[in-house]
Amino acid sequence: MVDKHLSTQFDADLNDLTTKVLHMGGMVEAQMIKSAQALAEFSASIADQVIESESRIDQMEIEIDADCVRVIAMRQPIASDLRYVLAITKITANLERAGDEAERVARRTKHIMEDSFAASINIAELKVAGDLASSLLKRSLDAFARQDALAAQKIIQDDRALDQEFRAFVRKLTSYMSEDPRSIKVCLDFLTVAKAIERIGDHATNIAEQVVYQVYGKDIRHSR
Amino acid sequence: MVDKHLSTQFDADLNDLTTKVLHMGGMVEAQMIKSAQALAEFSASIADQVIESESRIDQMEIEIDADCVRVIAMRQPIASDLRYVLAITKITANLERAGDEAERVARRTKHIMEDSFAASINIAELKVAGDLASSLLKRSLDAFARQDALAAQKIIQDDRALDQEFRAFVRKLTSYMSEDPRSIKVCLDFLTVAKAIERIGDHATNIAEQVVYQVYGKDIRHSR
Repeated sequence: MVDKHLSTQFDADLNDLTTKVLHMGGMVEAQMIKSAQALAEFSASIADQVIESESRIDQMEIEIDADCVRVIAMRQPIASDLRYVLAITKITANLERAGDEAERVARRTKHIMEDSFAASINIAELKVAGDLASSLLKRSLDAFARQDALAAQKIIQDDRALDQEFRAFVRKLTSYMSEDPRSIKVCLDFLTVAKAIERIGDHATNIAEQVVYQVYGKDIRHSR
Repeated sequence: MVDKHLSTQFDADLNDLTTKVLHMGGMVEAQMIKSAQALAEFSASIADQVIESESRIDQMEIEIDADCVRVIAMRQPIASDLRYVLAITKITANLERAGDEAERVARRTKHIMEDSFAASINIAELKVAGDLASSLLKRSLDAFARQDALAAQKIIQDDRALDQEFRAFVRKLTSYMSEDPRSIKVCLDFLTVAKAIERIGDHATNIAEQVVYQVYGKDIRHSR
């Protein structure tokens, strides 16, 4: 009976942790969508909303990490239960960094929109890249919620499409800069934005790797 | 007696973990020094050495993480002992990423040295930034080895000097590109190198924050 009681409490702890991670993930998704909107509409007020919300995501990371430490110390989980909790601390670290990158997009947008050359840059690939990154992050959270290792492995493959869009956009920026050196400053800002979006895809991939680890107990990092 | 026996075993486990982290840290430091040398001397063979050694650092991260899981499951540490082990998994994640960035420097060096404009770019700030990043990483490992929270907090402040060098170098690259658009390609490669070096400083800072957490139990991330 004691074991069952402890186990039920542990299950409640895990449910609580999972809920918090998904809540944090939802916040990061919202930040990405807003930062993309700020860029597409050149909206300083939307960019400011992203910048202001960032600290709440930071606090979520600290709070969830503290919960993980408490759960490990109190419940002393082993095997797959321990793996699940440890993977959560890595997932939140990646969510927090993805949130940082969304904030970076918002901050750069405010620079970009003040540049007279900004409107003349075609950012089609950047928008595709942003949609891909949002989709990868959303899918990585779904895979986590459902503990779906197959879906997670698919995400890791699909990150390549995002890398391709990134490289295509960098080539385009290089052309713009060569054609008119006055566009260099704003092109470098767009490059920072593109790099931030590419990194969000990397974080989604890292989250997916942690889901595979949670499900199979196999550490597939660096095996690509 | 059982407790003492367990405690002694746990101490041996922690010593073993600490030794492995410092060994991994030494490998990353060596990668940074070599990648800087490859860039300074335009040496493809040194760059190749860095690229080849990268997978050993990846393996160290996976191995140390697996050790941490084993130690937690077997010894069920609480309080500061648990914090120490959990911080190690974050420290190795940062060391691995710093190693990735050193590899990025090496890979880009091979592009840069093939560009006819490479030799005409003055990279004084980049060299200063590289030295600063190496020093920050080394100091973060020393602070970890000695569990010196004051030294760790100093590192977090000193990272600003690296950020300043980075920004000064980006301004210089912008000038080069404006003056001669034919230099744009190599300048973007140098920008990637500079960004990688700046990120190494961020990883050193993250390691320092984990040392503060180990020593004080206080999570100072995002408090700057």
